[in-house]
Amino acid sequence: MSAQGSGPVRKPLPSGFAEALGGRFGEAFQTSEAILAQHGSSESHFATMLPDAVVFAESRDDVVDLVKLCAAARVPIVAFGAGTSIEGNAAPVQGGVSLDLTRLNKIVAVNAEDFDCMVQPGVRREELNQHLRDQGLFFPIDPGANATIGGMASTRASGTNAVRYGTMREAVLSLEVVTPQGEVIRTARRARKSAAGYDLTRLYVGSEGTLGIITEITLRLHPIPEAISSAVCGFASLKGAVDTVVQSIQCSVPLARVEILDAMQIRAVNRWSKLDYAELPTLFFEFHGSPSGVAEQVETVKALAEANGGGEFAWSNLPEERSKLWRARHEAYYAAVNLRQGAVGWATDVCVPMSRLAECIERTHEDLIGASVPATILGHVGDGNFHVVFSLDPNAPDELAEVEAINARLVERALEMDGTCTGEHGIGLGKQDWLIAELGDAVEQMRLVKRAFDPQNLLNPGKIFTLWAAPRPWRSR
Amino acid sequence: MSAQGSGPVRKPLPSGFAEALGGRFGEAFQTSEAILAQHGSSESHFATMLPDAVVFAESRDDVVDLVKLCAAARVPIVAFGAGTSIEGNAAPVQGGVSLDLTRLNKIVAVNAEDFDCMVQPGVRREELNQHLRDQGLFFPIDPGANATIGGMASTRASGTNAVRYGTMREAVLSLEVVTPQGEVIRTARRARKSAAGYDLTRLYVGSEGTLGIITEITLRLHPIPEAISSAVCGFASLKGAVDTVVQSIQCSVPLARVEILDAMQIRAVNRWSKLDYAELPTLFFEFHGSPSGVAEQVETVKALAEANGGGEFAWSNLPEERSKLWRARHEAYYAAVNLRQGAVGWATDVCVPMSRLAECIERTHEDLIGASVPATILGHVGDGNFHVVFSLDPNAPDELAEVEAINARLVERALEMDGTCTGEHGIGLGKQDWLIAELGDAVEQMRLVKRAFDPQNLLNPGKIFTLWAAPRPWRSR
Repeated sequence: MSAQGSGPVRKPLPSGFAEALGGRFGEAFQTSEAILAQHGSSESHFATMLPDAVVFAESRDDVVDLVKLCAAARVPIVAFGAGTSIEGNAAPVQGGVSLDLTRLNKIVAVNAEDFDCMVQPGVRREELNQHLRDQGLFFPIDPGANATIGGMASTRASGTNAVRYGTMREAVLSLEVVTPQGEVIRTARRARKSAAGYDLTRLYVGSEGTLGIITEITLRLHPIPEAISSAVCGFASLKGAVDTVVQSIQCSVPLARVEILDAMQIRAVNRWSKLDYAELPTLFFEFHGSPSGVAEQVETVKALAEANGGGEFAWSNLPEERSKLWRARHEAYYAAVNLRQGAVGWATDVCVPMSRLAECIERTHEDLIGASVPATILGHVGDGNFHVVFSLDPNAPDELAEVEAINARLVERALEMDGTCTGEHGIGLGKQDWLIAELGDAVEQMRLVKRAFDPQNLLNPGKIFTLWAAPRPWRSR
Repeated sequence: MSAQGSGPVRKPLPSGFAEALGGRFGEAFQTSEAILAQHGSSESHFATMLPDAVVFAESRDDVVDLVKLCAAARVPIVAFGAGTSIEGNAAPVQGGVSLDLTRLNKIVAVNAEDFDCMVQPGVRREELNQHLRDQGLFFPIDPGANATIGGMASTRASGTNAVRYGTMREAVLSLEVVTPQGEVIRTARRARKSAAGYDLTRLYVGSEGTLGIITEITLRLHPIPEAISSAVCGFASLKGAVDTVVQSIQCSVPLARVEILDAMQIRAVNRWSKLDYAELPTLFFEFHGSPSGVAEQVETVKALAEANGGGEFAWSNLPEERSKLWRARHEAYYAAVNLRQGAVGWATDVCVPMSRLAECIERTHEDLIGASVPATILGHVGDGNFHVVFSLDPNAPDELAEVEAINARLVERALEMDGTCTGEHGIGLGKQDWLIAELGDAVEQMRLVKRAFDPQNLLNPGKIFTLWAAPRPWRSR
């Protein structure tokens, strides 16, 4: 993509700046090759782009001081968490400081009666759920990777539970944010709803670190359901699987999770996770509720599956069986990438209205049949969201060009169906042209926000959109 | 309140401007006293503030042209819908044009398979639900008044169903907006989730017409539940009623509606709606689900109510009985205001974390006991949101001062509990000082957005916040 190679020329750090950071942050300031590489590479197909330095924040004050030092010296800052983003969202394209927030990993408070908690941005979702379990609570947002909560807020992550519990948009009640000027603000109180002014919380959620640095997150939690049941069901066709989900939702079945994996993805999962599912288009289900409620849901969905060419349901009701099933789903990306040894991954991400989903997946599947690169389809089918994962040979530039073309056709197909170019991965570097295709002049309103909040363009510069639209004749108004 | 009397001096319309509007809009341009008064008064306690003119938009182009004419002449525009807002949200404090959107009342499309629809801003919620009923769908957001969808989006309305179905924040999928420069943008596609850039949809929802004029709204819909059951239950104490709700939610009961009315509010409702409920703290419930699901919910809630001093459940299962019950609830505001003949209403609105709700309501109730103005408590108790409705004698200035003081204590109480000064009415004119108390420096980020989007400050000027913070010594950064 053009966005990868473009962007302003990197400037070296101003003279004396590294020394100033070293003086303020001591050992938490790092410039070793290994640490720079860790903060400049990604799990996806983007080239490594090194920051000039890494600072590990250990307090909110560290963040404030770093932001002020960088603002004074006009040095970019890119917030960094688990490094699991997919679209180059945390790549330091203009160099500067990679601000590692993983040491800010305290669970600050759990308010069990209010079903909420406050955490620092470096807390990881699995760790949070382990902490909550004894109190009968859980945090449902599950993007697959064991991401940090700060990173998940920044990219508006969602994943397997979103069909029932929503995305980070719904999960975040309030944020503490350090502005590009080093001011600390809190975007909302802890009430479950509010009509107090502009929705700053939702403005920062999904802004990919371009508007401020998140230093604390207040999250909505949910009670662990009384009954949980998971099942796997293979289908004669992709369409049959998708139709089962669409019809279940139309019947108001409150599915907690419903994931689609095509036959190739099942082959990859079987190989990677040592399982033996039939190599068919397959749905992974999870049902939450009271025992009788779950039984009722299951009955409805089984009848629909049968009518749509589904086979037997293979049940996983014990916690350890469920864990195994969902671990396999969570490793599906790595399983797909490793269909070829030494390959690198490229995971695309579109989301379309439910009525168009079967057609979108089918046409995409047809497009993949002719491809020379192994590719799988998997997705959060209850939201209309799915991914294609390509297993790319890094030494074969033709493959990259081929995948770029398939990806372009996929996004165009989704946009034609009034869908979006990204359901959950964000824009980062990889989807900038598609954002313009999707939202047109609305992107100009985003730019107005960015320029107003961060006039020096120091927070994660070069992401989501260019600061100014490409030159064009000014239109008369 | 200070906000009522403040604001810049009104300027007369520029010479030739009225003629230009008349030329462009013909009969849709109005300056008669009666029409100006209709657009300058409110159902609440705010003084009437007349616009200089009213324009009835009949197309998106009308909105675009009016915005451009006003931008060129620097004349304020205030969007106007049903006129049911509570905090002076649509009062033309700086005069200018009141843009009446009620003639933009087409239901543009209903996508039943996708559970969404597209409507113009002047469509009213009851009308929409009548239209949807035959397709087995409904739009759940219900603020009581038969408001327009545009007005509801602008104030981030919620109401009785929010505990289960969310607020306008969750209900709006996408918006078509005319910017202050007269550009038309669409904030999102029709996919159910997206990570494509900043969340402009949520930025406009709740911005009270200060950032753009909404000309089309895409809404999420829900299937009409298979079974619906409503009930009324009186309690020995307010605390018993609130505790029943808090515990029900902790037991994961998916209450569809749960409303509290104190004894005084029940007296008002009995008198206004000719009913005969016992004058006790009372809960109005609604349960949605499958027949067995509803039965299970009811069983849990009845047991909790009994343990908390609740009496018998009076059931309303037939549609016409349910309508009667909820009509009484919807008329509760008018019932409360009319506790005294010729009175005007003032409805406050706070929302606190659930764990603090019982205490907040009880302390508020104690505060009201000593008041000389009749006042009732009612609210959407499943969200932690409640109102006090005062029945004010418009000719007794002492009463206004007394109510101002009670309201101040209530908001301070809610803020102390980490709650918000408004759960659903918005800031408008009445809550501006409280917004600052609630969010402090975060309000400055809101001002940055407003100044970037609307540098001439022409869209609903004087609302939510002053464009610049009150003068204070500039802090060093």
